[in-house]
Amino acid sequence: MYHKLTATPETCQWGYFDNALEPALTIRSGDVVAMECLTHHAGEAPDLMMDDGVREVYENIDKNDRGPGPHIVTGPIAVVGAEPGDVLECRFLQAEPRLPYGVNFQANWGLLYGPVRAPLGHATTTDLESHQHVVVYEADWQQGTAKGLFQYAYPYADESPYPGTFIEPHTVARQSALRGVSVPLRPHMGTAGVAPAQSGRIHTVPPGEFGGNVDNRSFVPGTRMFYPVQVPSALFWAGDTHFAEGDGEISGTAIEGHLNVMLQFVLHKNLRIRTPLLETDTEVMVHGFHENLDEAVRIAAAETVYEMGRRWGLSQRESYSLLSVAGDLRVTQVVNGVKGAHFVLSKSVVREMR
Amino acid sequence: MYHKLTATPETCQWGYFDNALEPALTIRSGDVVAMECLTHHAGEAPDLMMDDGVREVYENIDKNDRGPGPHIVTGPIAVVGAEPGDVLECRFLQAEPRLPYGVNFQANWGLLYGPVRAPLGHATTTDLESHQHVVVYEADWQQGTAKGLFQYAYPYADESPYPGTFIEPHTVARQSALRGVSVPLRPHMGTAGVAPAQSGRIHTVPPGEFGGNVDNRSFVPGTRMFYPVQVPSALFWAGDTHFAEGDGEISGTAIEGHLNVMLQFVLHKNLRIRTPLLETDTEVMVHGFHENLDEAVRIAAAETVYEMGRRWGLSQRESYSLLSVAGDLRVTQVVNGVKGAHFVLSKSVVREMR
Repeated sequence: MYHKLTATPETCQWGYFDNALEPALTIRSGDVVAMECLTHHAGEAPDLMMDDGVREVYENIDKNDRGPGPHIVTGPIAVVGAEPGDVLECRFLQAEPRLPYGVNFQANWGLLYGPVRAPLGHATTTDLESHQHVVVYEADWQQGTAKGLFQYAYPYADESPYPGTFIEPHTVARQSALRGVSVPLRPHMGTAGVAPAQSGRIHTVPPGEFGGNVDNRSFVPGTRMFYPVQVPSALFWAGDTHFAEGDGEISGTAIEGHLNVMLQFVLHKNLRIRTPLLETDTEVMVHGFHENLDEAVRIAAAETVYEMGRRWGLSQRESYSLLSVAGDLRVTQVVNGVKGAHFVLSKSVVREMR
Repeated sequence: MYHKLTATPETCQWGYFDNALEPALTIRSGDVVAMECLTHHAGEAPDLMMDDGVREVYENIDKNDRGPGPHIVTGPIAVVGAEPGDVLECRFLQAEPRLPYGVNFQANWGLLYGPVRAPLGHATTTDLESHQHVVVYEADWQQGTAKGLFQYAYPYADESPYPGTFIEPHTVARQSALRGVSVPLRPHMGTAGVAPAQSGRIHTVPPGEFGGNVDNRSFVPGTRMFYPVQVPSALFWAGDTHFAEGDGEISGTAIEGHLNVMLQFVLHKNLRIRTPLLETDTEVMVHGFHENLDEAVRIAAAETVYEMGRRWGLSQRESYSLLSVAGDLRVTQVVNGVKGAHFVLSKSVVREMR
């Protein structure tokens, strides 16, 4: 069955997941949902990134009802029959830009904010230390690229007054940025997942076993993410959509833009995974999360060993060897408090296994 | 000019770099060197990984003259006119296996050695905690793949008696491993670089600004690594060759095998880099090293920002944005004490810059 879920002040939450919320939509396994997802960065280029629907959400969700996180998420979607211990597969079928502009925000939580001491004992990136910055990109969906449009110094030194603060064009000095540079588009949902088990308003920034702010730039149309269900009916949310991102997401954000996405949901009763798993036609990616990147990579590696046993019947010794010689450890993001690493394994290595 | 550098007890050092050593060869910028590189893991399959030349090195370098590191390196090669502050480019022209077998060692310094607590609170990888293990692979250079041949439990619980200890076939129970699995070959030098500035016998395990045990699996034929010269004449070493490795090198090793390599060296007087840089036809990769992976990624990111300014004239703000939306942060290795991360940037993003 096909459903449509529009982003409105009623179907969007700003900055939190709460597993006590009434579903915005109820579906069955196999259903397809056309869903509007909004970025929370439209206020940084309000002349380019607003239409009536976006403006309605930005104006009608009370400023005091935003937080503790910054993200706008659409949902929740209840899945009939889903129970903790099941796995919800989210097949990403399609993504279209709602408006062709996106923002990269260089945040005070970015990797190079604050002094960076380089090997020779003096800072390499002094220009980046001290204030926040905005670069606006324009996407060409036909070309599959985004180009730099303009940049400006963000006027708030530290926190902005509230999530979604408007920075009106005449209040800042917009200057050209990245002339001639082409960024490949990789449209994905920065934040997507099932409801966390914990009750109350859960911060949208740190990712976890439930998914959430995973920020894997490889979760593009044609791929599917598997989430371990935490609560009855699963309660799926998505938002914080990105046009493009590099592994690491080092400035604190991607190219943040609104996307209309089409998703299909499949409920699995007999899969056992313990952390989100992304599958493409050619690769399997297993995530690990931890405040400390050294621990995140250990968790990702251990969960990948476990998954290889489940999937291909390999012993832990065999899986460990294969990962060391053919698996790739990547940094998903280092800017969400809880950092993310993922192991990428090409399915071609086991192609000839009987 | 073309040179040949054979691996012998005289041209190999086992476990150290020492910038006071006499050069094994002296070359000029532009020269090509055909060089034999040996793995230090041949003792784990001595029936398959020895020929007369390898055996001569294993038998004639005194056991007490090995260390503090485990690696066999060939060199040093002096480059006429090289001075600290210059950059030595090593163009990797060709690699041939000396013998078609390689060892993956699951070491007590591997990522999953010791208890790993998985998200649900119990260990996922209990089989890997407690002892070292060997998997031997056979490479098919025509096919471009390696296949698992056999595995066995390593007989020494902790340290082996000395680097290069022979494990005779009849002393262990060899069992089949990874039947049907195909690992793509990516022949590279695990350890290569210029001499460190510090005097004395320098441990070969931790990588640094001079290169050394960088373990970047992308340093394959057709690519070139740039090293910041630390001492007069540069003094290049290479060894610890690998047939294949995944980013992370999590078990502590790659598929370790002997390679005959052909390298061309070019001295640059006017380049300024501060950490090894790998360039392929399509990508630039900048390395960062630190005991703590969180710091290693910061250093790699900062050095990449610096390199983008040098190379393309981008401002730090522009480079930072571009890295966040189009650069990929990868984990080079997490097993060399000093961990490595590298930023990968596709050159296609700046293709249309004027």
